[in-house]
Amino acid sequence: MNQKKVILTGDRPTGPLHLGHFVGSLSNRVKMQDEYKQYVLIADMQALTDHASQPELIRKSILEVAFDYLSVGIDPNKSTILLQSLIPQISELTMYFLNLVTWNRLKHNPTVKQEIMQKNFQENVPAGFMIYPVSQAADITIFKANAVPVGADQLPMIEQTNEIVRKFNRMYNKEILIEAEGIVPEISRLVGIDGNAKMGKSLNNAIYLSDDADILKKKVMSMYTDPNHLKVEDPGKVEGNPVFIYLDVFDPDKENVRKMKEHYSKGGLGDVVVKRRLLEVLNSFLDPIRKKRKEFEKDPQYVLDLIFKGSVEAQKVAINTLREVKNAMGMY
Amino acid sequence: MNQKKVILTGDRPTGPLHLGHFVGSLSNRVKMQDEYKQYVLIADMQALTDHASQPELIRKSILEVAFDYLSVGIDPNKSTILLQSLIPQISELTMYFLNLVTWNRLKHNPTVKQEIMQKNFQENVPAGFMIYPVSQAADITIFKANAVPVGADQLPMIEQTNEIVRKFNRMYNKEILIEAEGIVPEISRLVGIDGNAKMGKSLNNAIYLSDDADILKKKVMSMYTDPNHLKVEDPGKVEGNPVFIYLDVFDPDKENVRKMKEHYSKGGLGDVVVKRRLLEVLNSFLDPIRKKRKEFEKDPQYVLDLIFKGSVEAQKVAINTLREVKNAMGMY
Repeated sequence: MNQKKVILTGDRPTGPLHLGHFVGSLSNRVKMQDEYKQYVLIADMQALTDHASQPELIRKSILEVAFDYLSVGIDPNKSTILLQSLIPQISELTMYFLNLVTWNRLKHNPTVKQEIMQKNFQENVPAGFMIYPVSQAADITIFKANAVPVGADQLPMIEQTNEIVRKFNRMYNKEILIEAEGIVPEISRLVGIDGNAKMGKSLNNAIYLSDDADILKKKVMSMYTDPNHLKVEDPGKVEGNPVFIYLDVFDPDKENVRKMKEHYSKGGLGDVVVKRRLLEVLNSFLDPIRKKRKEFEKDPQYVLDLIFKGSVEAQKVAINTLREVKNAMGMY
Repeated sequence: MNQKKVILTGDRPTGPLHLGHFVGSLSNRVKMQDEYKQYVLIADMQALTDHASQPELIRKSILEVAFDYLSVGIDPNKSTILLQSLIPQISELTMYFLNLVTWNRLKHNPTVKQEIMQKNFQENVPAGFMIYPVSQAADITIFKANAVPVGADQLPMIEQTNEIVRKFNRMYNKEILIEAEGIVPEISRLVGIDGNAKMGKSLNNAIYLSDDADILKKKVMSMYTDPNHLKVEDPGKVEGNPVFIYLDVFDPDKENVRKMKEHYSKGGLGDVVVKRRLLEVLNSFLDPIRKKRKEFEKDPQYVLDLIFKGSVEAQKVAINTLREVKNAMGMY
């Protein structure tokens, strides 16, 4: 059998993926798929927890996200791409886990608390949203994942998962479920084109992997830079300047970036020139991705079939774990 | 196809059933199974919501409860007896429903609030317990039940179910799920042998359908009566006197009961005499049930197979409803 360590990762399908996703997770997945047995979960049921009234958005996004995965190089022969709602064992395991977590514990999950504020739910938090840490624990444990790449703000989710694992194993006196380790990547997020610390769909400050050259041009040319850099001859600020942050990440010509930064800091280098360079760099980066995406977009059924195939494969593992879990609990 | 109205009923398997269950629900089920398509759900997953650490009790009780069903005359050829955990579609539907109910709404469910107090959970209410009204809504709607027999204190559960049904049908613009009507039986509970308004396992005041003659005798002879009826010649109180309440329910000789009540009220009829009559009456009532139970106890595998067969039949309906639900939501 496969002795590789298992990693679980994935996305909520509520829109196409952007450069922030690439930097924070997609690029790592492409690297990790050789070393790990990697499950990439398209978490449509989790997406419903705060998008229950937009199932058509989720349906559309499942395919968008899969196009993005394949276009950046997540290889279905190395990674298992699966759709959460096609693994009913996750729902069952969630129901069993819910009995091992107190209501109070869920209420005080720091990640969820912050998200409730951000999403402005106020008094109308859906119950499904409050319990999503438990369903995430089921996602992770059902595949016996050793590691889960997360942003630092998501570490409480791993802690919740491991609490459930320990409680389950202790209560049912079986070492069936395993604890997972959160892997926080060096760069877990990318600044938005508006200078906001986080690129995000809802912040309307994202460059999508699927943006065409025209849209990309508009976005790059409208990017936030140093607000005090009014005239070309003014000295400009490089630190925290999104255009230079992006160049640092995406421009392979590091020496040229260094020179441009020096020039910009001294004064005499206009924003437009820097942005044109960034546009060139991003187009070079995105072009092969766009080309691959075009191919996949021509045959969505092929991509769906990949997801279905991955889900069937994942289901075998899920069925196995659930059987072990139910046996440990002495259930029929 | 079957045009009979559908009824869903059932029990949490946390112990054998008692006379209170017989009076409040089992006797009605025996009557209703001719008129309705009746599903009798052994709710093991719901039992776990507050008995997570006692799976062996639940496993044992599943069989006990099934013995009780069959012994009182629930006929597997008329009623479908099923085990909740064997219908994974209920878990899935619960997950979708959880997105349609707010956390606050669950917190204020009057039935749950009362049970939390009774069970003395304090700060440690399991999340699974808080959401059980939603899983109950899934039980009811997945079988498209038109009616659910409930105690008056359980009516908020039906209201919660119907709220979810209306919200689902409105949100996904399909009339797939149907609202259920709560049927409150004339007598929904029986006083305990200690005079407590409700007979209950946890109150330790129950006469079980499976009690043998010796245990029954001990319980009946120790029953609470009128505490002021000290000497035989004292006039005794008949109203609220458990012994007479039981005689009213179980003694087929109504005229004799009337006479005994008159005599007891006037004075001159001792508790022991009345209790002996009750013992006789209850033994006559329980004897055929005990006899049938003995037969089933000899062949537990036969009973389990009945449950498995019923669950497979029920699963077909559940798969169908879940498919309609997922289609309405535009899911794969």
